[in-house]
Amino acid sequence: MKAIVVKPGEKGATLKDVELKETVGENEVKLRTLRVGICGTDRGIVTGKLSFARPPEGADYLVLGHEGLARAEEVGQNVDLKEGDLVVPVVRRGCSKCLNCKIGRQDFCETGEFIEAGIRGMQGFMREEFVDDAKYLVKVPRDLGELAVLAEPLSNVMKAYNELVFVQKRSVWNCDDSTFGCRKATIIGSGPIGQFFAMVFKDNGFKVTVVNRRDPNQIEDKISRVVGYSFVNTSKGLDDVPESDVIVDTSGYPSAFIPLLRKMKRNGVLLLFGTVGGEKAEITSDLITFFVEYNISVIGSVNASKLDFEQGMTFLSVWKSRYNGVLQDMITKVVKPEETQDAILEKEKGSIKTVIEWSK
Amino acid sequence: MKAIVVKPGEKGATLKDVELKETVGENEVKLRTLRVGICGTDRGIVTGKLSFARPPEGADYLVLGHEGLARAEEVGQNVDLKEGDLVVPVVRRGCSKCLNCKIGRQDFCETGEFIEAGIRGMQGFMREEFVDDAKYLVKVPRDLGELAVLAEPLSNVMKAYNELVFVQKRSVWNCDDSTFGCRKATIIGSGPIGQFFAMVFKDNGFKVTVVNRRDPNQIEDKISRVVGYSFVNTSKGLDDVPESDVIVDTSGYPSAFIPLLRKMKRNGVLLLFGTVGGEKAEITSDLITFFVEYNISVIGSVNASKLDFEQGMTFLSVWKSRYNGVLQDMITKVVKPEETQDAILEKEKGSIKTVIEWSK
Amino acid sequence: MKAIVVKPGEKGATLKDVELKETVGENEVKLRTLRVGICGTDRGIVTGKLSFARPPEGADYLVLGHEGLARAEEVGQNVDLKEGDLVVPVVRRGCSKCLNCKIGRQDFCETGEFIEAGIRGMQGFMREEFVDDAKYLVKVPRDLGELAVLAEPLSNVMKAYNELVFVQKRSVWNCDDSTFGCRKATIIGSGPIGQFFAMVFKDNGFKVTVVNRRDPNQIEDKISRVVGYSFVNTSKGLDDVPESDVIVDTSGYPSAFIPLLRKMKRNGVLLLFGTVGGEKAEITSDLITFFVEYNISVIGSVNASKLDFEQGMTFLSVWKSRYNGVLQDMITKVVKPEETQDAILEKEKGSIKTVIEWSK
Amino acid sequence: MKAIVVKPGEKGATLKDVELKETVGENEVKLRTLRVGICGTDRGIVTGKLSFARPPEGADYLVLGHEGLARAEEVGQNVDLKEGDLVVPVVRRGCSKCLNCKIGRQDFCETGEFIEAGIRGMQGFMREEFVDDAKYLVKVPRDLGELAVLAEPLSNVMKAYNELVFVQKRSVWNCDDSTFGCRKATIIGSGPIGQFFAMVFKDNGFKVTVVNRRDPNQIEDKISRVVGYSFVNTSKGLDDVPESDVIVDTSGYPSAFIPLLRKMKRNGVLLLFGTVGGEKAEITSDLITFFVEYNISVIGSVNASKLDFEQGMTFLSVWKSRYNGVLQDMITKVVKPEETQDAILEKEKGSIKTVIEWSK
Repeated sequence: MKAIVVKPGEKGATLKDVELKETVGENEVKLRTLRVGICGTDRGIVTGKLSFARPPEGADYLVLGHEGLARAEEVGQNVDLKEGDLVVPVVRRGCSKCLNCKIGRQDFCETGEFIEAGIRGMQGFMREEFVDDAKYLVKVPRDLGELAVLAEPLSNVMKAYNELVFVQKRSVWNCDDSTFGCRKATIIGSGPIGQFFAMVFKDNGFKVTVVNRRDPNQIEDKISRVVGYSFVNTSKGLDDVPESDVIVDTSGYPSAFIPLLRKMKRNGVLLLFGTVGGEKAEITSDLITFFVEYNISVIGSVNASKLDFEQGMTFLSVWKSRYNGVLQDMITKVVKPEETQDAILEKEKGSIKTVIEWSK
Repeated sequence: MKAIVVKPGEKGATLKDVELKETVGENEVKLRTLRVGICGTDRGIVTGKLSFARPPEGADYLVLGHEGLARAEEVGQNVDLKEGDLVVPVVRRGCSKCLNCKIGRQDFCETGEFIEAGIRGMQGFMREEFVDDAKYLVKVPRDLGELAVLAEPLSNVMKAYNELVFVQKRSVWNCDDSTFGCRKATIIGSGPIGQFFAMVFKDNGFKVTVVNRRDPNQIEDKISRVVGYSFVNTSKGLDDVPESDVIVDTSGYPSAFIPLLRKMKRNGVLLLFGTVGGEKAEITSDLITFFVEYNISVIGSVNASKLDFEQGMTFLSVWKSRYNGVLQDMITKVVKPEETQDAILEKEKGSIKTVIEWSK
Repeated sequence: MKAIVVKPGEKGATLKDVELKETVGENEVKLRTLRVGICGTDRGIVTGKLSFARPPEGADYLVLGHEGLARAEEVGQNVDLKEGDLVVPVVRRGCSKCLNCKIGRQDFCETGEFIEAGIRGMQGFMREEFVDDAKYLVKVPRDLGELAVLAEPLSNVMKAYNELVFVQKRSVWNCDDSTFGCRKATIIGSGPIGQFFAMVFKDNGFKVTVVNRRDPNQIEDKISRVVGYSFVNTSKGLDDVPESDVIVDTSGYPSAFIPLLRKMKRNGVLLLFGTVGGEKAEITSDLITFFVEYNISVIGSVNASKLDFEQGMTFLSVWKSRYNGVLQDMITKVVKPEETQDAILEKEKGSIKTVIEWSK
Repeated sequence: MKAIVVKPGEKGATLKDVELKETVGENEVKLRTLRVGICGTDRGIVTGKLSFARPPEGADYLVLGHEGLARAEEVGQNVDLKEGDLVVPVVRRGCSKCLNCKIGRQDFCETGEFIEAGIRGMQGFMREEFVDDAKYLVKVPRDLGELAVLAEPLSNVMKAYNELVFVQKRSVWNCDDSTFGCRKATIIGSGPIGQFFAMVFKDNGFKVTVVNRRDPNQIEDKISRVVGYSFVNTSKGLDDVPESDVIVDTSGYPSAFIPLLRKMKRNGVLLLFGTVGGEKAEITSDLITFFVEYNISVIGSVNASKLDFEQGMTFLSVWKSRYNGVLQDMITKVVKPEETQDAILEKEKGSIKTVIEWSK
């Protein structure tokens, strides 16, 4: 069958014929791929910038793709799914050695010996079919359908949000009416991850500002109005960025978030989500003193648990119900497998999320 | 304007003309009542069984009604709502003395000096209009409309569920895939509260069984199929009740939950929600030993915070999106204010939730 | 070597010659037993009342003893202990299947397939020597010496206390100066477990009352004065029992704690620790309503983790430093191995803890 | 009476005659000062480097001193203390507006409108007598006596440690035997704060390394041996610094902790405690990526609650019992009030903590 593969040391992705494992074990499911999203990690792999990308042991190529959506075609006898059910596969698979992996929290793996579909050590979902262990399949609720291709990127946002809320219980952080209505979150970056953060914070009662170094494009403008958050172009100055209880960086650039840190309120949190290479920035001991005196905390967050996927599905259902059409709007382009390489290499201006359609 | 009132020491409810406070303060909103739900507490008040029911200080009658839904008609200048917005009012208002009330968690009031709309010390929502402090108003998301009349009963379920999940973090309670997919919850009672518990547990991944001493009626049968839980008639024996990690009692009868306790798994929880009078039951020291040896915990839970209302709104949106028509089905009867007394006094067979329509 | 053993189906304990496993693995330690405490569980086993007592698989007798204190005599190469170090062994060993056992919390084992030294499925410490896995050995701090024989019973109290404090974070439970100085704990029972609860609550800032159905004996009277708690004889009435935030039952008799429950304050906790057979008591639906309306929670707690042992050692050091001589006073009798049967069968009046001295 | 005072805009501290408020309210205590410790904050105030230092409103001088120990001389009628009791006063007093201050957690004050004895807005304890509200007085256990002068600096360490342990519950962080025995903490700085961190981590089971840019002095060497931690001179290279789960910076210099960050293990924490001015350092986007990919969290921690003081007292009792003489050794110099200025201005080589003796 066809698959999008990359080879170590070679730039670019190619459509290639590969073979699928045939048998379906009693805890496994054979799946037909419907849609796979493309993200910055895919770009990093194809351009050779992500040093940790690698094929499975013994393979000489890596099938790309970790934002999957698939339909069950053959279901192992121990599996609580039916033929025709839609599922989203979890990306990371644990080391089975550390305690976090043993309890299903491989997103907190301590050994680093995990593998990740389409990224490191495990074939990804950009292929016509695959067989997977049901333990790693998240059932898609009936109301979502193809929108569930957004569940994987959203899952990582859910994990980060859940970790933030947990950490903030170190002090009284809910407002005097028990909600988060008095809290302000500022999100750096307006890509799909930034949009998801904006919606999650908004739906949890926060006042939300999204910042970028430019004005919003047409779709961003629409989303911000439907969801109800402010968009600030920081290239024009920081005056319109409010004092914030949370600052989320989705950019990875210290130069993007360091100037905003002085907007942080006491007991605030800087959530680090973005990763990117090649930049340097300066910090001062005054900033460290500020972190201490203000009880500031910083959280680096990566990956997501299956529970985060499930919660992401819940939010997708809410947004489908509340934000008429916004989720569809976020999928700005649907391409064929043959068009993948181009779609990965050149992110179109004004686009938010591109997905590959493998089957209907 | 018209209101449904009860008088201390007199049985029954009457439709009566009452006066509304006229002015709308800068933090207040004048509201037109749309719908008010009727529940067991209303029945208890009208039949004189609830000893704590009382009018506000200085008043000689109590306006009934705590499951409200209203439309903003006049909005104070400090209030972040617009004319036309739908809101659901929080029921309990804190003592302003204890720490829990100071941080907006009057559902955990320690002094007992709180008041509750339509129940004790505060006029309720069964009247054409009322003025309320915006701090206690929960905005209804656009997608819900009249279904938001279900938010108040659901809020109490949310609080109980949230407390359960918090308490269970005392040990590893998530399954080995990080979800609650291996956990079983058994709900005693199939009224609206039982249905809400079933849906909340179901949507959080639990396997759910609802039990009653009879077979399901037609609507219950439909809901159980759409939501995906089992219904067991315990008058035919307990064999079909699974070993459970959670048992929720919505009945208040010790005779209903004590026989089920031996179905409880290690580290399990008995959630007490139902309240009713006049029954006795026997426990043994063997049962106490069982609770100790099995690390069993029991949680009595009452009322809800504003945050629980907000989370309830989120679940209503999810269920509206996922469970086609189930929420509408749960509202089995809509009556006029003139029909309130009858609707309160006689709960029809097969009915789930009756609501009074005050305005459209 | 000599050991105190019981045989299934036979009452009484006998001093008998048994053989020790000879080799000491690289993660193991050969230990000389110094002291072993005697508790109600030993009594229950010897009198045949504890149905779950059983020898290890394949053995036809059970070596008694789970409150151990021993000295390292031979240390495996991977073990971070030195010859001569004192240690206390953990009692329960996990099933290695459930998640709680996998992360070292066998006190929350879900399968029930654990074993317990001297109780079920594993030889105990009432013998001259034994070999044990270092993972289950808690090092005794230098200052404690023989007092560390109290660490095992105290560990169970620590677990229960830690669970209580965790569960109470469901609401604001610390006082308005951040401490527990405004909270009151009432302990039912004045045996060693009751005394330990009294000290742990006292040292955490609570106001403490210990109740029994009789006046305190001489030692109890002394301890109550040194530690600073009240002792109430409930056979004279309950008027002197204060309204309480926590009630701890160490008796196992429902008839002991049910009458005290109406002393419980809102958001309070009933901690169940005692286990005993053969008693019945009545509860009412009014009591259930009280639990619901007051947000009361009940926690059954059994066993302890290694971390609880370590925290117990910390408290023993504190009490040794603060409560001059009280810990020594609690050890009311030291017997020889030959005297064990008598010491187990007849608990002397006025005694608190009896220990067997195996070696110095 | 005599007091050590500073004047805004003037360097140095002077011994001066000041007047005491005479009356003792019913919730207050009149106290005779016994000892007051000197720390870096005092140095910062006297040398004019701490910009936030200020006298109380209306006063033209600030009485220094926040590490107090005093004896009750006159006790208000509502106060649960006796004449002769030793107490340590809490430093920060809340704004009474924000929720954290309302629940006694002024260490998390959100408004910044708190005051701090001897630092900003409130007279300190370097004077012969003072009157204070009992709410802010921590009773000293009988066994501690004059050692309790160490309770205030230790309280800040306790708060930071407690926050760390709370935040780390975001994943499984206890080891597979439930303890922290597999975790490693590296402390930057070997002053009194560094020593306290070392002892707290050690007593909680961690393997501890203390680092400085020089070899340990004689007292540090002794403490490290008694407590049982390693001391590494980082001016000779970082090879001996172990991979760590926690890095605590007590220095405030980014140049001290940034080079150590690559020693951080997955899910690790950088605890920021030190504050100092005037230094710059460079971070890279690679470091940010490392924080994200490794789920690293950073916690800035300041001040302490009364509960932290109480827990500090517990640890002082433990250390007095376990670490023979180490606490006395940490008090390297006792000076008279007349010698304060010199003691503040020149920190002697090899000294750890200097205290002023006001009375016996």
